[in-house]
Amino acid sequence: METSRKRPRVVVVGAGFGGLWTAKRLARYPVDVILVDRNNYHTFLPLLYQVAAAEVGPEEISSPIRTIVRDFGNTEFTMADITGIDLKAKVVLTRGKDIHYDFLVLAIGSVSNFFGIPGAEEHAFPLKTMDDGIDLRNHILSRFELAYKETDLEERRRMLTFTIVGGGPTGVEYAGALAELIRGPVSKDYPGLGRREVRVVLVEAQDHVLGMMPEALRAYALRRLRSMGVEVLFGTSVRSIAERGVMFHDGTVLPTETVVWTSGVQGEPRLGSWGLPQTAGGRIAVLPTLQVAGHPEVYVVGDLAGFEEDGRFLPQVAPVANQQGAAAADNIERQVRGVAPMPFRYRDPGIMVTIGKNAAVARLAGISFTGFAAWLLWLFVHLMNLIGFRNRIVVLIDWGMDYFFADRSARLMLSCRKRPGTGNLKPGS
Amino acid sequence: METSRKRPRVVVVGAGFGGLWTAKRLARYPVDVILVDRNNYHTFLPLLYQVAAAEVGPEEISSPIRTIVRDFGNTEFTMADITGIDLKAKVVLTRGKDIHYDFLVLAIGSVSNFFGIPGAEEHAFPLKTMDDGIDLRNHILSRFELAYKETDLEERRRMLTFTIVGGGPTGVEYAGALAELIRGPVSKDYPGLGRREVRVVLVEAQDHVLGMMPEALRAYALRRLRSMGVEVLFGTSVRSIAERGVMFHDGTVLPTETVVWTSGVQGEPRLGSWGLPQTAGGRIAVLPTLQVAGHPEVYVVGDLAGFEEDGRFLPQVAPVANQQGAAAADNIERQVRGVAPMPFRYRDPGIMVTIGKNAAVARLAGISFTGFAAWLLWLFVHLMNLIGFRNRIVVLIDWGMDYFFADRSARLMLSCRKRPGTGNLKPGS
Repeated sequence: METSRKRPRVVVVGAGFGGLWTAKRLARYPVDVILVDRNNYHTFLPLLYQVAAAEVGPEEISSPIRTIVRDFGNTEFTMADITGIDLKAKVVLTRGKDIHYDFLVLAIGSVSNFFGIPGAEEHAFPLKTMDDGIDLRNHILSRFELAYKETDLEERRRMLTFTIVGGGPTGVEYAGALAELIRGPVSKDYPGLGRREVRVVLVEAQDHVLGMMPEALRAYALRRLRSMGVEVLFGTSVRSIAERGVMFHDGTVLPTETVVWTSGVQGEPRLGSWGLPQTAGGRIAVLPTLQVAGHPEVYVVGDLAGFEEDGRFLPQVAPVANQQGAAAADNIERQVRGVAPMPFRYRDPGIMVTIGKNAAVARLAGISFTGFAAWLLWLFVHLMNLIGFRNRIVVLIDWGMDYFFADRSARLMLSCRKRPGTGNLKPGS
Repeated sequence: METSRKRPRVVVVGAGFGGLWTAKRLARYPVDVILVDRNNYHTFLPLLYQVAAAEVGPEEISSPIRTIVRDFGNTEFTMADITGIDLKAKVVLTRGKDIHYDFLVLAIGSVSNFFGIPGAEEHAFPLKTMDDGIDLRNHILSRFELAYKETDLEERRRMLTFTIVGGGPTGVEYAGALAELIRGPVSKDYPGLGRREVRVVLVEAQDHVLGMMPEALRAYALRRLRSMGVEVLFGTSVRSIAERGVMFHDGTVLPTETVVWTSGVQGEPRLGSWGLPQTAGGRIAVLPTLQVAGHPEVYVVGDLAGFEEDGRFLPQVAPVANQQGAAAADNIERQVRGVAPMPFRYRDPGIMVTIGKNAAVARLAGISFTGFAAWLLWLFVHLMNLIGFRNRIVVLIDWGMDYFFADRSARLMLSCRKRPGTGNLKPGS
């Protein structure tokens, strides 16, 4: 296990986009890399909402990390949950052995930010990890089973009201995917339980969806959502969430058993106690070189990095994480050579959001697309960015099944049992 | 939900092979069918061991029951766990509403029989349900992660000793699949952790594997297993199982953290209290017509049916369940017409067991096959019996990835969390 100490050791914490792209770039350089993640797989988060909508299976949007890093040559994977960092001793602390570093790249992403709303932590469904996706899938599918048996109309309606908080890309994409799940497989499998009885409610505090998009694209997305039967409530924010309903700021209550939280993210809350400078939203403040002030050997990339450009924080999206990962790797190599690190500059590749069958909005190189062309582009870009030939093919098959037959096969309600002795690697498993 | 009461109502409990084939045949007849299962999906159990070996994903060997029965026309699905039967009132009891029947078909299969061996219930891994398969997959994959970090050689060896109890088809197939997992993905992903350190131990009380096969096929299977590195211990039975080892009848202890139980099955233990006549092994005694004596409206099919033919109980395998399901449906139709039910006669289609790449044994129409031909036949028969085009294609892709690249993509270690409000449909979820 112990690698040669002649080459500097880079510890990369987190195997999401940021961490993986750091390791991938570091494969070119004469360093030893230890990649740490709490899971044994990388999750392709842009398609996580499709797991939660039973459109693709968990296996299809994930890949074993060991298999990915096999080709890197200089990367060793360790499955561990980190519990702290000793910046002085240059050591990452885990439940097992501590890991010494010469350079550290923190890429542990973000968690949901519930803004202290009462009941949100307990009752809202986040959509940030594979486990979240599977949980939400189980929950949604069981609502249909329960409602189908329920004779009390009010209860039935409550079970069939799906509330999504946040009109950003995830909220819009999930609302669209749910609306199609209901229009297709659900209406076919639960005769009589159709669009009229099932509600998808998208709640947004502002007066528009997709705030980062130009006005024309926002309007298109809204029109599409509404034509698919999604109710969009603007200027509405959440005061509290309970098991059987959500209360809005004006005191009205929506009876619902499902509140999906896509509204806000923040840095890993435990980071506050690890001695790193934080920005608003719990991110870690970084220098233009992605280093932490006072710790030239510590880099932060991806959602966790509070990186300001032109006076604004960069968005917490995959392309930022990928580019920052590569940039951090390049800067580490410069430091190893004794050269000063370079400031990072984001090259915005644009943004794409799909709303449903044949419908998407895209903004690329200053040009706006909508409709079928944007949708095809969205499919192509997501498919090509999936890791592994097998996953691309299987996702394509599932999309085809959904598109041509309105059928979704990934509709398993898995129960989870705790077995003694099996869970000592994963907290909560 | 309430179906017309003019047609007799047949309640089929269990959507495994027996129950599904009953419902499929009943689709031809003028009856209303209610199919009840505790899961919302049907599991193709012959490939469950491949889920536990991370070869295929859970989604690939399962199908939503509602989608399967959609085409039957006269079948309604209810997801429920049955808690009893009132034979007098002709009612099936569930946690929710009770379900009245005119005819009842019990097809709830079998559970593992640990024969009261101390520690087995708590520490052995059964392989009877999808949840079992996922549990075992998580456990096996975490042994490799834990062992890779472990420096104590004895502990490491214990973690890497995988014990399979029972030399029947499931034990042999799983031993082969594990041996290939180790030879392929594991040796590639954990450099240094190879065949020499990992042990697969198959424990069998008799002096042969595959007792139901002719001598030549048993010998071939044993030779193949041993050439793949599986240690086969004959004449060995288990005295007790603990978290860190298994003790055999002669007092020797094998340090192991994984004991897979494929050795015995029995009927659902709760059935004893429901007033149905039981045979040895906890099955329900049935007449030659598959009816329960004294209850001409109650049929039992599949693993649960204690059906004697030529003085021996039929084996608990899929073809028996399929044929009995169809036969029970035909007999119910006869009863509806006022005609006497016919005795069931099993037409044995033969048996096939795969051992590993290019190797299987098959006994069909009195002819024995081994090697590549048997293996191809095994692949073909299993693929064609999977439900749904999508699953066939995806399983074929995964088999191809494994065959040509020795890679398995379904290697997710999922953690399971209990969330309030999500589990009220499934016990233990």
